Amino acid sequence: MYSFKNDYSEGAHPRILNALIESNLEQDEGYGEDRYSRQAIELLKARIGRNDIDIHLLSGGTQTNFTAISAFLRPHEAAIAANTGHILGHETGAVEATGHKIISIEVSDGKLNPSLIKEVLEAHPDEHMVKPKLVYISNTTEIGSIYQKRELEQISEFCKENNLILFMDGARLGSALCSVENDLELSDLATLVDAFYIGGTKNGALLGEALVICRDSLKEDFRYHMKQKGALLAKGRLLGIQFLELFRDNLYFDLARHANTMAGLLSEAINEAGYGFLSHSPSNQIFPILPNSLIAELQDDYSFSIWKKIDSDHSAIRLVTSWATQEEAVSAFIALLQKLAGRS
Amino acid sequence: MYSFKNDYSEGAHPRILNALIESNLEQDEGYGEDRYSRQAIELLKARIGRNDIDIHLLSGGTQTNFTAISAFLRPHEAAIAANTGHILGHETGAVEATGHKIISIEVSDGKLNPSLIKEVLEAHPDEHMVKPKLVYISNTTEIGSIYQKRELEQISEFCKENNLILFMDGARLGSALCSVENDLELSDLATLVDAFYIGGTKNGALLGEALVICRDSLKEDFRYHMKQKGALLAKGRLLGIQFLELFRDNLYFDLARHANTMAGLLSEAINEAGYGFLSHSPSNQIFPILPNSLIAELQDDYSFSIWKKIDSDHSAIRLVTSWATQEEAVSAFIALLQKLAGRS
Amino acid sequence: MYSFKNDYSEGAHPRILNALIESNLEQDEGYGEDRYSRQAIELLKARIGRNDIDIHLLSGGTQTNFTAISAFLRPHEAAIAANTGHILGHETGAVEATGHKIISIEVSDGKLNPSLIKEVLEAHPDEHMVKPKLVYISNTTEIGSIYQKRELEQISEFCKENNLILFMDGARLGSALCSVENDLELSDLATLVDAFYIGGTKNGALLGEALVICRDSLKEDFRYHMKQKGALLAKGRLLGIQFLELFRDNLYFDLARHANTMAGLLSEAINEAGYGFLSHSPSNQIFPILPNSLIAELQDDYSFSIWKKIDSDHSAIRLVTSWATQEEAVSAFIALLQKLAGRS
Amino acid sequence: MYSFKNDYSEGAHPRILNALIESNLEQDEGYGEDRYSRQAIELLKARIGRNDIDIHLLSGGTQTNFTAISAFLRPHEAAIAANTGHILGHETGAVEATGHKIISIEVSDGKLNPSLIKEVLEAHPDEHMVKPKLVYISNTTEIGSIYQKRELEQISEFCKENNLILFMDGARLGSALCSVENDLELSDLATLVDAFYIGGTKNGALLGEALVICRDSLKEDFRYHMKQKGALLAKGRLLGIQFLELFRDNLYFDLARHANTMAGLLSEAINEAGYGFLSHSPSNQIFPILPNSLIAELQDDYSFSIWKKIDSDHSAIRLVTSWATQEEAVSAFIALLQKLAGRS
Repeated sequence: MYSFKNDYSEGAHPRILNALIESNLEQDEGYGEDRYSRQAIELLKARIGRNDIDIHLLSGGTQTNFTAISAFLRPHEAAIAANTGHILGHETGAVEATGHKIISIEVSDGKLNPSLIKEVLEAHPDEHMVKPKLVYISNTTEIGSIYQKRELEQISEFCKENNLILFMDGARLGSALCSVENDLELSDLATLVDAFYIGGTKNGALLGEALVICRDSLKEDFRYHMKQKGALLAKGRLLGIQFLELFRDNLYFDLARHANTMAGLLSEAINEAGYGFLSHSPSNQIFPILPNSLIAELQDDYSFSIWKKIDSDHSAIRLVTSWATQEEAVSAFIALLQKLAGRS
Repeated sequence: MYSFKNDYSEGAHPRILNALIESNLEQDEGYGEDRYSRQAIELLKARIGRNDIDIHLLSGGTQTNFTAISAFLRPHEAAIAANTGHILGHETGAVEATGHKIISIEVSDGKLNPSLIKEVLEAHPDEHMVKPKLVYISNTTEIGSIYQKRELEQISEFCKENNLILFMDGARLGSALCSVENDLELSDLATLVDAFYIGGTKNGALLGEALVICRDSLKEDFRYHMKQKGALLAKGRLLGIQFLELFRDNLYFDLARHANTMAGLLSEAINEAGYGFLSHSPSNQIFPILPNSLIAELQDDYSFSIWKKIDSDHSAIRLVTSWATQEEAVSAFIALLQKLAGRS
Repeated sequence: MYSFKNDYSEGAHPRILNALIESNLEQDEGYGEDRYSRQAIELLKARIGRNDIDIHLLSGGTQTNFTAISAFLRPHEAAIAANTGHILGHETGAVEATGHKIISIEVSDGKLNPSLIKEVLEAHPDEHMVKPKLVYISNTTEIGSIYQKRELEQISEFCKENNLILFMDGARLGSALCSVENDLELSDLATLVDAFYIGGTKNGALLGEALVICRDSLKEDFRYHMKQKGALLAKGRLLGIQFLELFRDNLYFDLARHANTMAGLLSEAINEAGYGFLSHSPSNQIFPILPNSLIAELQDDYSFSIWKKIDSDHSAIRLVTSWATQEEAVSAFIALLQKLAGRS
Repeated sequence: MYSFKNDYSEGAHPRILNALIESNLEQDEGYGEDRYSRQAIELLKARIGRNDIDIHLLSGGTQTNFTAISAFLRPHEAAIAANTGHILGHETGAVEATGHKIISIEVSDGKLNPSLIKEVLEAHPDEHMVKPKLVYISNTTEIGSIYQKRELEQISEFCKENNLILFMDGARLGSALCSVENDLELSDLATLVDAFYIGGTKNGALLGEALVICRDSLKEDFRYHMKQKGALLAKGRLLGIQFLELFRDNLYFDLARHANTMAGLLSEAINEAGYGFLSHSPSNQIFPILPNSLIAELQDDYSFSIWKKIDSDHSAIRLVTSWATQEEAVSAFIALLQKLAGRS
């Protein structure tokens, strides 16, 4: 049984484990003040091409989302998210638990745009309602789509005009930036959004997300928020060492590119076999719509999620590839699919 | 510069890194539902000798404290803690951030007892005040002392009679249970307290605390609380693998015993050199009171915390040993201390 | 300029002010432990026909909603509400500020039913999502509709089967129970819902809502929650005296009936003039759809809310009547409407 | 049985009820946007002598405290209060329920000073602890003492130098400003503190506290916070009418002066009878220390609180006078005390 269920089924890229071993017995400071974390942060700043940003290393996506959002907002302010947004439906109300409403916008492609955000602002005119203040977007989105530079520029401009904070969930930022359709650079993000994070957990690390705070007014005292929310690891070096390894050359991007390539192979084959997709996804998550009978047969050998019922005979499934996905496994899956599809 | 600053200065025990490497490329379920986490939990249950307990693996002490306490209490209920309690002064208001007051009790030895708790109950008679509901104790305490079985039994009995939840912070539980003065077993804890945790981070793991919930009424839906508070790691196997390795033989206890032995050597030498201590500490943290001039000279070669000013010429320092403390470093420190002390 | 903007434009019914004056200089206990509050609670229990319920007097709807909901739920549990629900869009995130998500269900008539609630339960299967636990309904709804007994029985049964808490916002409960279409009694509510409140503010009181807690497990320590949320008035007698006056005879219902009658006159005339309505509303709020030009002319003499744009030429407005609405004002409004409508 | 138990035992001053009656049937805007509230706010600004302040009318002290403090602080920031502070022990953790720790300072006279606050700052140096940010003081204090202008200036200066927010709980501000020992004016407060409130509930109103926000950076969006915390009454006019009546001439101060005079008579007589006091209290709350046997006899005819056990034979009681305290009742109490004291 091979799993295409997610991009965190394996441990870490071997180079990361090696880096942990090499540094293991050195003594260093706790709580992220160690030399590795400091070096990793300097390296990330260099990669982003900006020195006037703050970077913090946290453990996971949910933790990063609620720690940042609760630090950035005052009590009456709300986040805005696409209905597919991870914070809305898949984090057990973590943001609301810090006291903030999330306003949901129905979309079909996982993405927000100025006109959708404007409608929310207009529907929240006074103090009887929350004050929409932070725009949460994900890149890649939760359904595999990505933001084009022009799209992000438009949102960014709108947010600046309306004094909104633009926050990008980058749990799968590697896959987004390495997509064949991507035209964004890391350095663009620092200009266009107020804060974003570079996901490590889903791209080869054991755990770890690098939060980048670009807007000055959001930087103050952020380590207090991290400590309060359980996000300062005593052995913070564990995060520093990993990001250092991922970014000291192109490992981070190589891993993401591999995941995308594997997903691309799957997409192409599924398309050629005559099946459609729930969303346009040029990244490491794809959502083919398949006959239920075919799905059942695939499930004998492969593990993946049933994403959505389409009609009585068809469902969309989610296939996720990662840095660790073996090309042979992809080939075998394709072969089986072709065999099963040809037969039907 | 050798550090006696804390017990999380190094990485993990080498066996733990090996275990991570061995399992690294196996695919498994996310969010703590992998085979390693399940095995680790079964193993811990066996070690504790109880099947009717729930065990969850979390990342760190602060996270475990606020996730558990906020899950256990209703909004108007408060925790009670010794003034030295970690949750009171060293977790950036993490428990209060979940909405709960912590009532502080002034103590000199870091420990609570029924009569102190009773005073708090009597001072909180009605709905104009919070309702004291959870008793937070630490073992070892934050100043190195430990609970004797008889003391814990008395607190336990009092809590049962008064319908209070007894919660033990076990960030340094290994050191407590391996103290030469200890008469408690892991199995006693499951009988005497409602919930406790077995600290991994400060005893050889990269990160990880095993929370044990003993009282049935506190068990329901705990994984929801973990997810909401950012405590469900996508690669939860990282925690499972470590606890499995620590407990599949006596590694956890061997590491704690080593730390205690090293602290014992330091204590003995400091005592023989004629210096006193801030607290009676039969564990891996000791708090000698030294002349400030001596401290300054020690600081040339050793890193440690100045804990408390005693008078204009003396301060208490904190020396912490760990599984990784090298006996040669201890010997060298002792030699230096004897040399400096003899000279004065 | 006469106002049909809401049902809290005037002060209190004169009998209430008289009652305040009569008792004014008597000394009594604070924080709702005075004789008036106790008598009012006993009287309400008798009116509801149940002694095994707890009743508390609070100041306003938002306060009652968030105090009750946060007292009833554990941190990971969520409320379910119709998209029109007051707690969702018109209380500035008050429920979320206590840490709880509200799951919105799109409806056209302001009302929930078992099948809608069931869909929410099915969409929230595990700990990665909040746990839906409390069903919030309003009677009358925010768009003037009311629950029939059979509808409420079905929801109640479904909630019991699924261990959900059923909570009814009764800010306009008087209008609901006095609607010509109503078949519910106060005593039915105590059987069918777990908690509800009897709104005073919008039915003749200066301020005040009587929260009725029917389910035993929700009763404990409720006064602690009230105090914590600012809902225990030092001079709680102010609430007790008002509810005593409203319920010592049929004043509460007489006032509601008057409001409904006035709204009925408006509805009938608007209907006869050939205009439709946004919702079926047999209560004190009606939502006629009128030409924008007509609306503009009505606004010269009357104050009311523009509720919703219907098309480029028409909007729904909201007309609200109350215990204080003067029949002459209603007649004059109707006459003007007929004049303006006839002309067009 | 006459009560000296508190200053909220009666209803409202008769002029307030009259004002409610006179305006009762006028239609006006809801939620504090009515003409009375607007006029009251303008009047208060004139009385304070400042136009650059924001004033909001809330219902009670606890509500005002937690609404303001949670609006003013970021999540990791804490309040500092004397151990006698109302928010610390008598508001059921209302401030902590909004996520903020309160740091307690042990004092004997209910008052803070720069040196005490400085110690707190020094004990909270980094992100492992909350960040002390708001200084909470009460005038009168909870044990009847008052701040002298020089004392307040010193605290104010210290807070400005250390970027702390200075907040004054004025639940009994009338009594403080009308104390024979007072040298502060309303206008001084607006200069010296960042926010304070003028208590109505305990000085003749049915309910109501006027919160004055002086520091610009604390003003933004405050009505959102009020709505979210249940502090925007639908019939906000109820608060406006009362403050208008209290401040359109000197009624507010006359009532406070009467309360103080009555307490002064009691103090003088108790002192002449040879008894001491727990605190120096030139206001409407006094805390005489009396023999327990004497207390028991007084309790046959008078209701008051036993405040604190002093020794096995003596206790401090609390006697509170108000705008409504009858001089005859005071005289009768004094006569009884003299009789009982003379006999012993």
